[in-house]
Amino acid sequence: MIHRRRPPGTAPGTLVVDPSAERTAVHVIAYGEADYVEAEIESPDELDPFLEGWPVVWVNVVGLADAGLLEELGRRFEIHRLALEDVFNVHQRAKVEPFDHQLFIVARMVHPGGRSETEQVSFFVGAGYVLTFQERPGDSFDLVRARIRSGRGRIRRSPTGYLAYALLDALIDAYFPVLEGYGERLEALESEVMARPEASIVQRMHAVKRELLVMRRAMWPHREAINQLFRDDSSFIDDETRLHLRDCYDHVIQLIDIIETYRELASGLLDAYLSSVSNRMNEIMKILTIFAAIFIPLTFIAGLYGMNFAYMPELQWKWAYPVVLTVMTGVSVVMLLFFRRLGWVGRWRRQERKD
Amino acid sequence: MIHRRRPPGTAPGTLVVDPSAERTAVHVIAYGEADYVEAEIESPDELDPFLEGWPVVWVNVVGLADAGLLEELGRRFEIHRLALEDVFNVHQRAKVEPFDHQLFIVARMVHPGGRSETEQVSFFVGAGYVLTFQERPGDSFDLVRARIRSGRGRIRRSPTGYLAYALLDALIDAYFPVLEGYGERLEALESEVMARPEASIVQRMHAVKRELLVMRRAMWPHREAINQLFRDDSSFIDDETRLHLRDCYDHVIQLIDIIETYRELASGLLDAYLSSVSNRMNEIMKILTIFAAIFIPLTFIAGLYGMNFAYMPELQWKWAYPVVLTVMTGVSVVMLLFFRRLGWVGRWRRQERKD
Amino acid sequence: MIHRRRPPGTAPGTLVVDPSAERTAVHVIAYGEADYVEAEIESPDELDPFLEGWPVVWVNVVGLADAGLLEELGRRFEIHRLALEDVFNVHQRAKVEPFDHQLFIVARMVHPGGRSETEQVSFFVGAGYVLTFQERPGDSFDLVRARIRSGRGRIRRSPTGYLAYALLDALIDAYFPVLEGYGERLEALESEVMARPEASIVQRMHAVKRELLVMRRAMWPHREAINQLFRDDSSFIDDETRLHLRDCYDHVIQLIDIIETYRELASGLLDAYLSSVSNRMNEIMKILTIFAAIFIPLTFIAGLYGMNFAYMPELQWKWAYPVVLTVMTGVSVVMLLFFRRLGWVGRWRRQERKD
Amino acid sequence: MIHRRRPPGTAPGTLVVDPSAERTAVHVIAYGEADYVEAEIESPDELDPFLEGWPVVWVNVVGLADAGLLEELGRRFEIHRLALEDVFNVHQRAKVEPFDHQLFIVARMVHPGGRSETEQVSFFVGAGYVLTFQERPGDSFDLVRARIRSGRGRIRRSPTGYLAYALLDALIDAYFPVLEGYGERLEALESEVMARPEASIVQRMHAVKRELLVMRRAMWPHREAINQLFRDDSSFIDDETRLHLRDCYDHVIQLIDIIETYRELASGLLDAYLSSVSNRMNEIMKILTIFAAIFIPLTFIAGLYGMNFAYMPELQWKWAYPVVLTVMTGVSVVMLLFFRRLGWVGRWRRQERKD
Amino acid sequence: MIHRRRPPGTAPGTLVVDPSAERTAVHVIAYGEADYVEAEIESPDELDPFLEGWPVVWVNVVGLADAGLLEELGRRFEIHRLALEDVFNVHQRAKVEPFDHQLFIVARMVHPGGRSETEQVSFFVGAGYVLTFQERPGDSFDLVRARIRSGRGRIRRSPTGYLAYALLDALIDAYFPVLEGYGERLEALESEVMARPEASIVQRMHAVKRELLVMRRAMWPHREAINQLFRDDSSFIDDETRLHLRDCYDHVIQLIDIIETYRELASGLLDAYLSSVSNRMNEIMKILTIFAAIFIPLTFIAGLYGMNFAYMPELQWKWAYPVVLTVMTGVSVVMLLFFRRLGWVGRWRRQERKD
Repeated sequence: MIHRRRPPGTAPGTLVVDPSAERTAVHVIAYGEADYVEAEIESPDELDPFLEGWPVVWVNVVGLADAGLLEELGRRFEIHRLALEDVFNVHQRAKVEPFDHQLFIVARMVHPGGRSETEQVSFFVGAGYVLTFQERPGDSFDLVRARIRSGRGRIRRSPTGYLAYALLDALIDAYFPVLEGYGERLEALESEVMARPEASIVQRMHAVKRELLVMRRAMWPHREAINQLFRDDSSFIDDETRLHLRDCYDHVIQLIDIIETYRELASGLLDAYLSSVSNRMNEIMKILTIFAAIFIPLTFIAGLYGMNFAYMPELQWKWAYPVVLTVMTGVSVVMLLFFRRLGWVGRWRRQERKD
Repeated sequence: MIHRRRPPGTAPGTLVVDPSAERTAVHVIAYGEADYVEAEIESPDELDPFLEGWPVVWVNVVGLADAGLLEELGRRFEIHRLALEDVFNVHQRAKVEPFDHQLFIVARMVHPGGRSETEQVSFFVGAGYVLTFQERPGDSFDLVRARIRSGRGRIRRSPTGYLAYALLDALIDAYFPVLEGYGERLEALESEVMARPEASIVQRMHAVKRELLVMRRAMWPHREAINQLFRDDSSFIDDETRLHLRDCYDHVIQLIDIIETYRELASGLLDAYLSSVSNRMNEIMKILTIFAAIFIPLTFIAGLYGMNFAYMPELQWKWAYPVVLTVMTGVSVVMLLFFRRLGWVGRWRRQERKD
Repeated sequence: MIHRRRPPGTAPGTLVVDPSAERTAVHVIAYGEADYVEAEIESPDELDPFLEGWPVVWVNVVGLADAGLLEELGRRFEIHRLALEDVFNVHQRAKVEPFDHQLFIVARMVHPGGRSETEQVSFFVGAGYVLTFQERPGDSFDLVRARIRSGRGRIRRSPTGYLAYALLDALIDAYFPVLEGYGERLEALESEVMARPEASIVQRMHAVKRELLVMRRAMWPHREAINQLFRDDSSFIDDETRLHLRDCYDHVIQLIDIIETYRELASGLLDAYLSSVSNRMNEIMKILTIFAAIFIPLTFIAGLYGMNFAYMPELQWKWAYPVVLTVMTGVSVVMLLFFRRLGWVGRWRRQERKD
Repeated sequence: MIHRRRPPGTAPGTLVVDPSAERTAVHVIAYGEADYVEAEIESPDELDPFLEGWPVVWVNVVGLADAGLLEELGRRFEIHRLALEDVFNVHQRAKVEPFDHQLFIVARMVHPGGRSETEQVSFFVGAGYVLTFQERPGDSFDLVRARIRSGRGRIRRSPTGYLAYALLDALIDAYFPVLEGYGERLEALESEVMARPEASIVQRMHAVKRELLVMRRAMWPHREAINQLFRDDSSFIDDETRLHLRDCYDHVIQLIDIIETYRELASGLLDAYLSSVSNRMNEIMKILTIFAAIFIPLTFIAGLYGMNFAYMPELQWKWAYPVVLTVMTGVSVVMLLFFRRLGWVGRWRRQERKD
Repeated sequence: MIHRRRPPGTAPGTLVVDPSAERTAVHVIAYGEADYVEAEIESPDELDPFLEGWPVVWVNVVGLADAGLLEELGRRFEIHRLALEDVFNVHQRAKVEPFDHQLFIVARMVHPGGRSETEQVSFFVGAGYVLTFQERPGDSFDLVRARIRSGRGRIRRSPTGYLAYALLDALIDAYFPVLEGYGERLEALESEVMARPEASIVQRMHAVKRELLVMRRAMWPHREAINQLFRDDSSFIDDETRLHLRDCYDHVIQLIDIIETYRELASGLLDAYLSSVSNRMNEIMKILTIFAAIFIPLTFIAGLYGMNFAYMPELQWKWAYPVVLTVMTGVSVVMLLFFRRLGWVGRWRRQERKD
């Protein structure tokens, strides 16, 4: 669950490339109120025409394998070494760090496929550009791209801060369907606990609890980060965007609320499961005890008259056999009445009917 | 428990109509100190005479299916797109959001029928009007309507803020009878746990806990919302209304207090239940052990003299049978004394008497 | 545990008389440094001579059945409708609400009889008077009355604020003996858990936990209320009284501390109980297993030679019987050694000796 | 755990002597940079020469039985009635109360003998004197006395505030060896839980938890008290003493930290114990089930051929007996293989080897 | 877990040498932008040339046995007695204490060998020097030394504050691989719980929980300490170093986050383990009950016809034996159907297949 960052003691700002990092690709969308343009670029130098010619440029870097290219980008956008190190070390918590000339934002993106692992997305918001780094191809931003292309909504008329908000908002909203999935798994588990749980349910309950723990660990820091963004007084966030961030903050609160509720539900489920296991054990023990307690005395009586003593007067008595059978029946009836009085027999029947 | 909001990534402010939304109807009550008037309207244009002619106008929109009509209303009352989106997305937590020209309030209404699901009610409080949106027909506001019609109390003499308070207060107070219902269910469960619980009690305890979780999740945010309303310095809340909001805040605190107490009671109940299941298991095991431990040695002795060896001198001895019977009685008595010393037999009897 | 307040939606300030409310009686004590006078009155008009002639007047209203009389009192002392409503709705949490001309205080009184239900006492402290409402005859104030009558202490020389403090202090201090009772019940339960608990102990432990929950719910809000009173800057609380309120606040903190400690003790007790039930179950199972595991093989051997096959050569062998008996003894010894090696037999003996 | 304070409702400031209070003795040490003097006194009047002639006077009152003498002391040092009442009522939480002319400090002293009960020590720090009250002879202050007598360290050169600090510091430090004792008890319990716990371990674990609860309840309020002392701006605490108080505060934090860690360890221990009890129960049940499941079918077969029917052809068959013996062996082997497949037999052996 | 500090009551500032303290060695590295020099010294006097000739001097003291040398160092660097006492008493929590002329920092170093005990490192940061004390040879600072020697990074160009940061950062980062080790142990435990846990797993789970508790206790105070360092306005921390401290603070938060997550995972694991133990117990009981309930009645029937009564007509009946066998088969089938109906037999098979 945690992974090696730069080896302890190396100079801060050292960039350590994860050997499993994906190939780097850089995608640029530049737009203004009237038009937009898209391109794949290979070197930071190709960025200049975009940055000079368009009000807002979104540079999206996918894959972190090419350390050289990333360092060049870092130089081009004057990124602090420590921030660049955080881009490479993809196990940051969500946070906002203001620098003089840009905002550095880290957020964690969830994947709809339901994998409980999250992916780090790093944002640099500066004058005229938003620079984003993500670990792998595939993200929650397609609809934002579509809005830029179509010119629908206010996005083409708004400054860079709004683009950063729009991306964050899309990233946060993508948690909702994933949590919905957990809600459905919890409901399925609940039905099973109440019916006839298989032994594997323990494993599945544990898995849900564990994944919710991961979700929670990912989501909580967003609360503080977006709150900080909301209160940030830099020029990158204007009043209208701030209003939208309040909305985004509401969504984070709602997500945290849902996660905590699900965690409590999962705990309650485990309690219910343990109670019902105890209950079932009780039923098993009752059946065993009823059988043992009725037949053991009868078997003893039978054994008694199976003894081969030469002098056992009863054995010769003509009515001995029917009398013994009657005694045995009597013992059984007494035992049954006793168990009925303890509420075992009657209750067991009632429950069976309920199934 | 959560439901799809606008698809992640779509432009903020997009209105997504829930396919199960109810047909929209708009009810208007306009009143002043002297008189009042009521009407059903079909288009926002019909509102103008009311808004111009009366000090306070309450526009109550029931059902959210007619997105067109709602958008028209939004334009008429200059509602922010994000607020209007929240009206449609009926899974908001209670909150207060001040806009320049109006207050936006979200609250969650409970239904007396005891369904644990809550319904979102959105309020817009502005100069001369209160605009409310609810999901379904049927609400907690009938007595407020009656007070407006009859002119009793201060409502007809008070500004829009007081109407908003009166509606919120009615909505909050409606939680009390619902919680009373939970109190009664908990008391019934408690009596059953202490007497002879059926296996289905686990299910019922779990259901109560789960529903209290929903109640709690609905109620907590009202605390912050009403507190914010209380401290709001806009012109919509005058001092007298603020005094009443303090009272309303007290009720929310009381409700939260009750919910938390019930949750603790429910937890304590589960503990008590598990203890008493363990206890009962102990009793069952004691009975089984007493039976087994007394009869198994006796049966063995009987089996011993049931062996068919040709040379078993005892078998021919005249007093063998009575001696064996005496030995068996002795073994039983010793075992019983042993169990009495362990406190099993005596205690079990005592408990039986207590039933 | 909660009871119907005014029906949801009725106008705030509506007075709803509980059908089980007690008959109203009004007792007046007026005093100054030199003298005091007492009277039972039937109408608020009779109060005027007291209020005009004495520095401090304590009007004590017992029983809330006579709504008319209470409303008259409310008018006489200019009590706000919402405060008067709170007097009738006797399920308030402790609180302090400052009004311009008087302080409104709600506190919850405990009864020494040990009933875990608490009674609401409402105080109105104004210029020259303290007006108190209690639900039933019988209270914790007798020694305060005695101090007024005897003129001991500072009470006769002090203003109304001190009287209010003295009453509150007496009310808070009355919790100590009640909690002492819980302490004794917990100690008794603890001794029993460690010795031989009866099955009914679960019920009694649950009862204590539940009642402590009620105590806690009653006591916590006093902390905030007395703190608020302490910081109140109205003219009703002078510096000397404030010093006494600090002392009273200390007592509330101490009571909360005791309640929380008792709650933890009760939880620890349940854990200890469950552990010792598990332990006992283990002992029972060991005894059963030892008996079954020793005798079942012996019985099988006996059964073997009880078979009636025509050709069983051993049956005719002269030493067969003694050999079989020896084998049986050997099996028993092996089993006992095995159980001793598992630590069952030795340990069980050791524990028995400990009893 | 709590004890009667002044009866509820009596005037605040009433001194109630605990019947079990110890005989009062008053010890005085007066010192300056150059010299010191010690005396036992019997009346407050004897204090005057000390207070007038020495820079710092420490009046140590041991035992609270002599209410008259204590009241005289109270008058001599102008102690507020409420503070004096707190001296007698020895169940206060640690606290600091500033009065105009003196500081009133309450702390709780632990005894090295390991009794979990703590003793109240009350300090009054004024111009030129420290007055302390303790319940019983014997305290943690002997090394402070030695430092005064020997003149080592800064104590003889420092004002009264430093003496108060030195006493408090000695009192706090005395908790360390007591907690060390709990650490050792917990480690011993841990070893036993992991080896072969006796049944009495439940009792001992409960006792440690309970005593840690008492320790915690005693220690927590010291944190707030010393913090308040640290921030106190009265003239009794000079800057150098404040630096030492920061050190003392650190020790309190460290003690709280240790107590909380021990509490968590104790909880974890109980969990481990319950898990291992469950485990052992499982082993017992497996042994029982293996024995029963192997021998019960064999015994049944033996019983079958012990029946006395006249027409049972097998009985006459020559090879019947060996065949039946073979069948029985086969059944046993099948059962053993079945249990080995379930992992019972193999696992049980492996665990046995581990012991 | 706690160790004796100076005996309670001795003068504050008394230095108590732990008898197990390691031999003292003093290592000096002095450096400037251009060059560096290293030396082992034996007396504080040898420090003067370094302190006078170089911008930054790092004096690293390893081993605390030589109290005389340490006191001399204390005098040379004007260390407060209380701070020096804290250096000797190696059980401090991490903290920062500002003195006029230097910063005193305590941190706790972890060892990669995975021992859960941590070692105290004390830092004194003053004008031109960083003085560190560690308990034993071996630390996390080797890469910092390498950076000083090689001149890589900014360290040689930065003031003393940056050196202090670099050491702290290396110390904090060394926790990551240790926690990674816990992550792996938890994952191994999880796999085992879900497969076939051995009894020793309880012990290992308890050990992990206990060690995480130690980790947590060590890490938490670093949060407050580094935060305080970050906000410290002394001249030792410049703006660039402050930016790096923010990064270091992030790492502490991340470590705390990981520790808390692991603690929750460990708790969840215990729950899962207990659930699966309960489950397995259920399975064992079912097998026992099935065997007992099927064979006990059959054995009884066999015993019945093994009785030796002279007059038992069935015994002579020719078809008696086959009829009895048929009845026995019938009883078995009925029992099996009954258990299948209860879901025992079918379910047990299904689970077996799943293995």
